[in-house]
Amino acid sequence: MTCIVMKFGGTSVADIGCIHNVARHIKREVDDGHDVAVVVSAMAGTTDQLISWAREAGAMQGAREYDTVIASGEQITAGLLSIALQNMGVNTRSWLGWQIPILTDSAHGTARIKNIDGTSLIKGFKQRQVAVIAGFQGLTSDERLTTLGRGGSDTSAIAIAAAIKADRCDIYTDVDGVYTTDPRIEPKARRLSKIAFEEMLEMASLGAKVLQVRSVELAMLHKVRTFVRSSFAVPNAAGMKDSINSPGTLICDEEEIVEQQVVTGIAFAKDEAQISLRRLADKPGISAAIFGPLAEENINVDMIVQNISEHGAKTDMTFTVPSIDHNKAVKILEKNRKEIKYDALQSESGLAKVSVIGIGMRSHAGVAATAFRALAEKGINIRAITTSEIKISILIDSVYTELAVRTLHSLYCLDKN
Amino acid sequence: MTCIVMKFGGTSVADIGCIHNVARHIKREVDDGHDVAVVVSAMAGTTDQLISWAREAGAMQGAREYDTVIASGEQITAGLLSIALQNMGVNTRSWLGWQIPILTDSAHGTARIKNIDGTSLIKGFKQRQVAVIAGFQGLTSDERLTTLGRGGSDTSAIAIAAAIKADRCDIYTDVDGVYTTDPRIEPKARRLSKIAFEEMLEMASLGAKVLQVRSVELAMLHKVRTFVRSSFAVPNAAGMKDSINSPGTLICDEEEIVEQQVVTGIAFAKDEAQISLRRLADKPGISAAIFGPLAEENINVDMIVQNISEHGAKTDMTFTVPSIDHNKAVKILEKNRKEIKYDALQSESGLAKVSVIGIGMRSHAGVAATAFRALAEKGINIRAITTSEIKISILIDSVYTELAVRTLHSLYCLDKN
Repeated sequence: MTCIVMKFGGTSVADIGCIHNVARHIKREVDDGHDVAVVVSAMAGTTDQLISWAREAGAMQGAREYDTVIASGEQITAGLLSIALQNMGVNTRSWLGWQIPILTDSAHGTARIKNIDGTSLIKGFKQRQVAVIAGFQGLTSDERLTTLGRGGSDTSAIAIAAAIKADRCDIYTDVDGVYTTDPRIEPKARRLSKIAFEEMLEMASLGAKVLQVRSVELAMLHKVRTFVRSSFAVPNAAGMKDSINSPGTLICDEEEIVEQQVVTGIAFAKDEAQISLRRLADKPGISAAIFGPLAEENINVDMIVQNISEHGAKTDMTFTVPSIDHNKAVKILEKNRKEIKYDALQSESGLAKVSVIGIGMRSHAGVAATAFRALAEKGINIRAITTSEIKISILIDSVYTELAVRTLHSLYCLDKN
Repeated sequence: MTCIVMKFGGTSVADIGCIHNVARHIKREVDDGHDVAVVVSAMAGTTDQLISWAREAGAMQGAREYDTVIASGEQITAGLLSIALQNMGVNTRSWLGWQIPILTDSAHGTARIKNIDGTSLIKGFKQRQVAVIAGFQGLTSDERLTTLGRGGSDTSAIAIAAAIKADRCDIYTDVDGVYTTDPRIEPKARRLSKIAFEEMLEMASLGAKVLQVRSVELAMLHKVRTFVRSSFAVPNAAGMKDSINSPGTLICDEEEIVEQQVVTGIAFAKDEAQISLRRLADKPGISAAIFGPLAEENINVDMIVQNISEHGAKTDMTFTVPSIDHNKAVKILEKNRKEIKYDALQSESGLAKVSVIGIGMRSHAGVAATAFRALAEKGINIRAITTSEIKISILIDSVYTELAVRTLHSLYCLDKN
């Protein structure tokens, strides 16, 4: 007997017709004899309505009350989907976050899951009962409702899969998997049948929108095999009987991937800005003086490169921030000029970061060199480079993004034939 | 320090503008130094939307799942009203039924409150915190959400008022109180400033729509002084400062009503049907044989009159049922003819019950006789009469309803001058 968690996002449960479609997906798995826990988001549109009401109610929003309002969206879907399933003869019950309970910290609106007690859900499986769980929500230790913030229902699903030791967590969404790169930029992009947790984490961090970083982190930490698939495929159609073989991408341990490619995908993030501080005193604590004040203002710093400057004991520090934070970051750094002690500040926006990702890079030398050569041949100037064991990130002018992505995609044989 | 419960129905919180208006009502009471608990319904329209979704989801509705869906309506209002109040500088928190908790039985959709622990609410008052409570909902002993059915939020409010020993429960609604009769039928109807619990119970039972019978019963049982008033009056206007003196009707113990009138009001119910069973054997158990099968089918029997028939040991039994149950009742009685043993069954619909209500009737003789005479003078034929200590009910042809109501209203000096 296999135990699976199935997660359906807002567009997959947008109206009652969609909910019936989702119910058929679930019945298919139940009929196959699996233990099933389902995690649902709010119906697309419902959360927007609730947020807009909350805004109208008052500009200054008590985060706890806001969460009380917003959490009702998933409650509605869980109840409706249970009704739909019961009408198809499936034994089911709805579970709200507080009923399980899903315990979180008190960071209302962006709460983090602390603990999930899977006992009741597992007890239900023994009675052949499907658990339909309201995603995105939890309970604080003082019994107030919380919501988990962006991508929260994915996080709920993966955390529940970990708690009940599910064999797989299926994330049903409006795309049919993870691609080698964004198909809107490179039509030759291929869907990956498998991707390792570490690679997916880099893809998510670097702009792939399929899963939020925190969900991938959680899946990696608990080794939850996560299958990203489309909810719009028709259940019970030919070829979908063995559901794991239907189109989708399995995010799993690298050991499960038999034929590991050197490069798995190309990610990119436009709208980056670069800031350089020239001729800094190269002494301990200088990084803290620069990045401390930026972190305090929630500015996400990336691609930090430090060079020995031409003048002996001085150094240059270059890093990127999202374009949206560019002006704010510059202001903060100018305010702290006295403490940081730099000679000059240079900055520029309109840049893009393109990344080559693959676990196979660990055991293959020369991947970076090949990339630099290919980009040079197209006349693309590289402004900064950072690397990790499984990733090379390159900062370029934004206008070259598409060209760079396509060049690298082809270079590493990711194009479909 | 006075402790008051304020209840706002669906039309009073229909949109965010209305919710802001409600918040001003609450702030007025808080500014006057009262401890305040607020009970809210779902925004008008929200419950309808939720019910319609639930119906679309499946014809056969698990009552527990249905309640999970529907209860979200009040949750939304409680959160939004809390946000609105906090934006006005009022210290407040929302309470869902399960958070207090409001414990109910397991009759999903029509649950009855078993117990309310007021400790947390009273603790909040000590910190000058307003409790904003989601009405209409509760929790079973196995932690499933329930809803209380029609008039449920009124019931919540009165039960909470009893639990926290509030000095008063204010029911804000779309009418400004209880009238001597329905003003749509008799424009001369007056608003009562006070009415005794027993009288209100009769008025509610007999068709006055202001409060459901179960709410009045609860108020009477726990002696909760209940003030019915309009939520559309502008708060803080002249004359509304001493809020209890603003327009409305106080439902209270009869001892609090100094100048008790003989007759307080005229109630009526159209769409009654009359059924007569002729020449029954007048023996023990005959009533059970007739009314048992009707009760089993949830048919509400009223105005039972039994006469000795012209033939010695035989008797005639006449009673009324709602028109909607007329055919069903006749069928049941015909099916059971053998057990009941009656000679003939006669029935007729298109009737109305008009009732004269007043605690003063206890100590005043001749009230009934005056009524019969006045109706006779108008040529209205009386088909049946039942009386209690504080009520006379008269069954007449439905077409005479308005004439009878106006005649009796004027007869007992209830017209405004």
